[in-house]
Amino acid sequence: MERPRHQGMTKNTYMRWRLPLVCLLWEAAMIILFGVFVHFGPEADAHWEEEKHEMNITSDIENDFYFRYPSFQDVHVMIFVGFGFLMTFLKRYGFGAVGFNFLLAAFGIQWALLMQGWFHSFQNGKILIGVENLINADFCVGSVCIAFGAILGKSSPIQLLIMTLFQVTLFAVNEYILLNLLHVKDAGGSMTIHTFGAYFGLTVTRFLYRPNLEQSKDKEGSVYHSDLFAMIGTLYLWMYWPSFNSAISEHGDAQHRAAINTYCSLAACVLTTMAFSSMLQKKGKLDMVHIQNATLAGGVAVGTSAEMMLTPYGSLIVGFICGIVSTVGYVYLTPILESKLHIQDTCGIHNLHGMPGLIGGIVGAITAAAATEDVYGKEGFIKAFDFTGSYKTRTPSMQGGFQAAGIVVSLLMAFAGGTLVGAILKLPVWGDAADENCFEDDIYWEVPEDDESDAYHMHNPDKAASP
Amino acid sequence: MERPRHQGMTKNTYMRWRLPLVCLLWEAAMIILFGVFVHFGPEADAHWEEEKHEMNITSDIENDFYFRYPSFQDVHVMIFVGFGFLMTFLKRYGFGAVGFNFLLAAFGIQWALLMQGWFHSFQNGKILIGVENLINADFCVGSVCIAFGAILGKSSPIQLLIMTLFQVTLFAVNEYILLNLLHVKDAGGSMTIHTFGAYFGLTVTRFLYRPNLEQSKDKEGSVYHSDLFAMIGTLYLWMYWPSFNSAISEHGDAQHRAAINTYCSLAACVLTTMAFSSMLQKKGKLDMVHIQNATLAGGVAVGTSAEMMLTPYGSLIVGFICGIVSTVGYVYLTPILESKLHIQDTCGIHNLHGMPGLIGGIVGAITAAAATEDVYGKEGFIKAFDFTGSYKTRTPSMQGGFQAAGIVVSLLMAFAGGTLVGAILKLPVWGDAADENCFEDDIYWEVPEDDESDAYHMHNPDKAASP
Amino acid sequence: MERPRHQGMTKNTYMRWRLPLVCLLWEAAMIILFGVFVHFGPEADAHWEEEKHEMNITSDIENDFYFRYPSFQDVHVMIFVGFGFLMTFLKRYGFGAVGFNFLLAAFGIQWALLMQGWFHSFQNGKILIGVENLINADFCVGSVCIAFGAILGKSSPIQLLIMTLFQVTLFAVNEYILLNLLHVKDAGGSMTIHTFGAYFGLTVTRFLYRPNLEQSKDKEGSVYHSDLFAMIGTLYLWMYWPSFNSAISEHGDAQHRAAINTYCSLAACVLTTMAFSSMLQKKGKLDMVHIQNATLAGGVAVGTSAEMMLTPYGSLIVGFICGIVSTVGYVYLTPILESKLHIQDTCGIHNLHGMPGLIGGIVGAITAAAATEDVYGKEGFIKAFDFTGSYKTRTPSMQGGFQAAGIVVSLLMAFAGGTLVGAILKLPVWGDAADENCFEDDIYWEVPEDDESDAYHMHNPDKAASP
Repeated sequence: MERPRHQGMTKNTYMRWRLPLVCLLWEAAMIILFGVFVHFGPEADAHWEEEKHEMNITSDIENDFYFRYPSFQDVHVMIFVGFGFLMTFLKRYGFGAVGFNFLLAAFGIQWALLMQGWFHSFQNGKILIGVENLINADFCVGSVCIAFGAILGKSSPIQLLIMTLFQVTLFAVNEYILLNLLHVKDAGGSMTIHTFGAYFGLTVTRFLYRPNLEQSKDKEGSVYHSDLFAMIGTLYLWMYWPSFNSAISEHGDAQHRAAINTYCSLAACVLTTMAFSSMLQKKGKLDMVHIQNATLAGGVAVGTSAEMMLTPYGSLIVGFICGIVSTVGYVYLTPILESKLHIQDTCGIHNLHGMPGLIGGIVGAITAAAATEDVYGKEGFIKAFDFTGSYKTRTPSMQGGFQAAGIVVSLLMAFAGGTLVGAILKLPVWGDAADENCFEDDIYWEVPEDDESDAYHMHNPDKAASP
Repeated sequence: MERPRHQGMTKNTYMRWRLPLVCLLWEAAMIILFGVFVHFGPEADAHWEEEKHEMNITSDIENDFYFRYPSFQDVHVMIFVGFGFLMTFLKRYGFGAVGFNFLLAAFGIQWALLMQGWFHSFQNGKILIGVENLINADFCVGSVCIAFGAILGKSSPIQLLIMTLFQVTLFAVNEYILLNLLHVKDAGGSMTIHTFGAYFGLTVTRFLYRPNLEQSKDKEGSVYHSDLFAMIGTLYLWMYWPSFNSAISEHGDAQHRAAINTYCSLAACVLTTMAFSSMLQKKGKLDMVHIQNATLAGGVAVGTSAEMMLTPYGSLIVGFICGIVSTVGYVYLTPILESKLHIQDTCGIHNLHGMPGLIGGIVGAITAAAATEDVYGKEGFIKAFDFTGSYKTRTPSMQGGFQAAGIVVSLLMAFAGGTLVGAILKLPVWGDAADENCFEDDIYWEVPEDDESDAYHMHNPDKAASP
Repeated sequence: MERPRHQGMTKNTYMRWRLPLVCLLWEAAMIILFGVFVHFGPEADAHWEEEKHEMNITSDIENDFYFRYPSFQDVHVMIFVGFGFLMTFLKRYGFGAVGFNFLLAAFGIQWALLMQGWFHSFQNGKILIGVENLINADFCVGSVCIAFGAILGKSSPIQLLIMTLFQVTLFAVNEYILLNLLHVKDAGGSMTIHTFGAYFGLTVTRFLYRPNLEQSKDKEGSVYHSDLFAMIGTLYLWMYWPSFNSAISEHGDAQHRAAINTYCSLAACVLTTMAFSSMLQKKGKLDMVHIQNATLAGGVAVGTSAEMMLTPYGSLIVGFICGIVSTVGYVYLTPILESKLHIQDTCGIHNLHGMPGLIGGIVGAITAAAATEDVYGKEGFIKAFDFTGSYKTRTPSMQGGFQAAGIVVSLLMAFAGGTLVGAILKLPVWGDAADENCFEDDIYWEVPEDDESDAYHMHNPDKAASP
């Protein structure tokens, strides 16, 4: 009760003019830029009726919409419900977790449509969009949601919007370098989404280091029902991850294969997570933090290789390893990162996205380097790695090398970008909370005054007196 | 503790014979009517194997099932989880919100299959149904779920079933007038679903005005976790709205386009909702009521125009405006509606469905009136507005006029229908709760006696003594 | 406070070495077996590019992935979120419900891929898998989730893993007998999944009878929010059941028809459940237990016949009956099963899966026996029942007889298998909890120490003093 509020008094978390100004100006900017640049792609444009004739397309079902829309919706759920609810585990930060994730993702997808559009769908001064662009925009925002996990509970909505603006921009640049310049395959984004997102977020949180954060430690835990809310996020991420890793793969066997590999990897990951969660706890009890997070590492780690001929067997091995690495990370590495490196990683994204993302990049490089025409078939081999045009002469081992280079580039971009953004967010004008008010919705949200137990007591008058 | 229960004593909320009777008789009626009328449409009938040969269909994938089933499932989730959980924000009405929504929707979809079937799928004395009918039935019930939002917590399950019976009937009539007589386009239902549903519900709640409702004001709020449950509803509505608005559009580019437009509108809407939520609150804090509801207005408002060439840019503008209109409505209009017009609108459907629905109708009329062969392509133009047969000579500006007429018709039907139903529901025989027992599950549900804090205390014996 | 803990002291629930050992060894076994046997099926293999040419497949959309993947994802959600959250109704067993379901299903799908693969997808020493195998693996695990419902709260994670190992094995054998030897149709699994799963689980729980379970009775109930969590499970099962019953049906009209029939049956079931829930309670109030469970019985009971020409009308009748049977079962049968037959059925799976499963088998037999070429069309008739090859001469009435035999075989397999597994699980080495510690997460999980009401009080300091 006599908690010292003095420091909080000195921090101005009043959002009334700052937040609306940012939201409205930026949305106005989006409208202008969309007006200038964004048009429907051929398959979403009413001219498609004529295009079909010209291109001898005999059925509407050939529209890319039917190949990708179901996967798109699954990815959409992962971004908004998956990431949003995964972060509701904190006892008093559920509104912030779901609500700020909603805000940053809604802004981020618009900006990503533009940034990725300029790099990948730009024709005659127009960005032409279709369902694949929507998926890619969601993917891009996924990397911001990951970074959000590191600074969850410690940052203002304005900081999150600024981070989103920069991170989406840098994501698109990094993605362009990897996919177009290095001609790297990364359909499920082990490198572009997870590695980049995680190390970007960790660098940012390093810059925002709060030495007195232990003043909020009492709120940095879960309660019983907040852990169940978080499991909604976990399960939707886990279940829909096969859609995530297959969403933008080539039509046909590649999408099919990516879904199967991811399914297998995730299944294996659950068992090793459970095993190590129990093994590393003195009383042998399972820890919800591990179940909520480490079970997903298998999906991260086949992000690059899922559409390749990784095989179900290889996927199980990857999942097996990542469940262990991730759980061990939560138990041993996270405390060290905080105490030694001053990296305060609220959700443990280093364990869920950082290390598994790196593993995913490496697995992808090895799988690519090991590819043979025998395994893929002559045509399948060329199609799988797009060894056409100027890449006609590239060999699997060269491809493996470029894949490895992609990991390094992603890491460098993450550190450089994180440094830039961390430095900006450190400016004392963005309205973040004082150290003792972290992990607390009350700072930015109207929180219902009535508490639950009162509601129950009201309902059962006799109970109110007894306890 | 000494709350006066006298009025409650006079109201008979005993459901034991009334509710089962209505449920069983009505379900029996459904069985008889289905037996007489409902048959599988050609694509769901086992004769399709032969039909394929006759119609030279070479692949099973041409079955409408594969064009629409994924969207159907998303719409299904919106009706049952989306609307159901959106209304769980009340601290003591979660069972009623989810459970009664479940009940009325399960009945409504059956009755809608019949009513819409008679109007649209009737051939040789048979209603032929397929996946598109399932979607339309869900849509129809959506308008009832909307109206339920206005009387949430104040009505008995029997009243809800009666409202469903009438509203579905009138919905089908209104839909027939709009789609068949006026030849209006309204794939996402801004007019038929949202405008009609909202003003219908508002008229009903006006009739059921409770002058002493403030006796239940202590229960008309949320608690922390009920707000998180409601966010599940919000997010599923928000994420799947692109499926909603594209579910019954023409195959190919129209479905593709409708999904993109809706995606854009919804994204913009989130930012202006957040901006105005913070701006209109003295302390600049965000209000969960706005986030839960106004963020969805952008989806409502492109319901008519999403399948047209609204463009992503136009969609952003619509979303931008609707986030503002809806949030301002919650802050300023809802209290006025209650105090001046005696319209008690529990969920604020006027802000989420009423005004955005009207805007959606207007945007649709303008977009239709502005259509040109240049923008749509010659064939696309005819296909988009179905300017064939007796509508061959209709011009875009005429179409715009008919669209506008559709708004007026929907409003008139809503007021007339709401008046009829409101008057019926006012009869004192349906078992609604007394004013001081509104927003309280205990009236109609077995509520677990054990309260949560007891459960926790039991678990931690030392804690039980301390607080 | 002075609860006697002595018995608990004698039971060793320490999991630290046993659980990790089982998880790691079994997962290692999976890796080895997958390495030896599992390969991508032709449509998921990179050679498909060449296969397409050979088989004259002109479009990637003909890949089975596009026919089944959306349904697969819905089934996946049913297994992990549907079953997982349905069982969170217990006030203090939410972690166990969701978490153990996650564990057993993640292991089960791997083992099912192998077991079902050996029986159905085995070619030249290889198991060839595709999306249909993933669906079937999920289906198989569904029967384990059902059995888990009977022993929920009373078993250790090791017991659950052992049960999964055996039950998946026996499921595959039973499925082989039904589908391959008896040539029975059971696309939605009324017999193979529900009847088998339920009576298997009931036999197991009979063996694990705990005479002193009433010591845990205070925890065998729900609290307000746990009932809402359970409704998430209920609704996802209810909404996606049309996908479940149509997921592995023949392409085209059969999938389409199965979805429609299931949709209808489930809708009817809700109304009779509500009717009987209110009717059978003295005060006429609705009981969440019934709403959470009996509303789903309609989906179970059309599992066999949904892909047949059951007609929407027939589906309504089946749903009508099953809502009643299931609700009556909860009220009258469950207590009798416990007191007379010593079957302690935590979730009432006998009412949700047992009886409706049997009804489903019978309805399937009747529908098959009543099939005529007139109703199905000449080609449709042959296709629907696969009356080709050695089954060319089978008549509908013969098929009906074989269907009925399938029910009997499933029951016998369930009793025999349940006896075997029940006897094994009774060994006192698996770490199950003492009678007074059942339905309590604290035994196997790290449970957050802070209770919710404390969190709230911390937040509102003035409140903390008052109650």
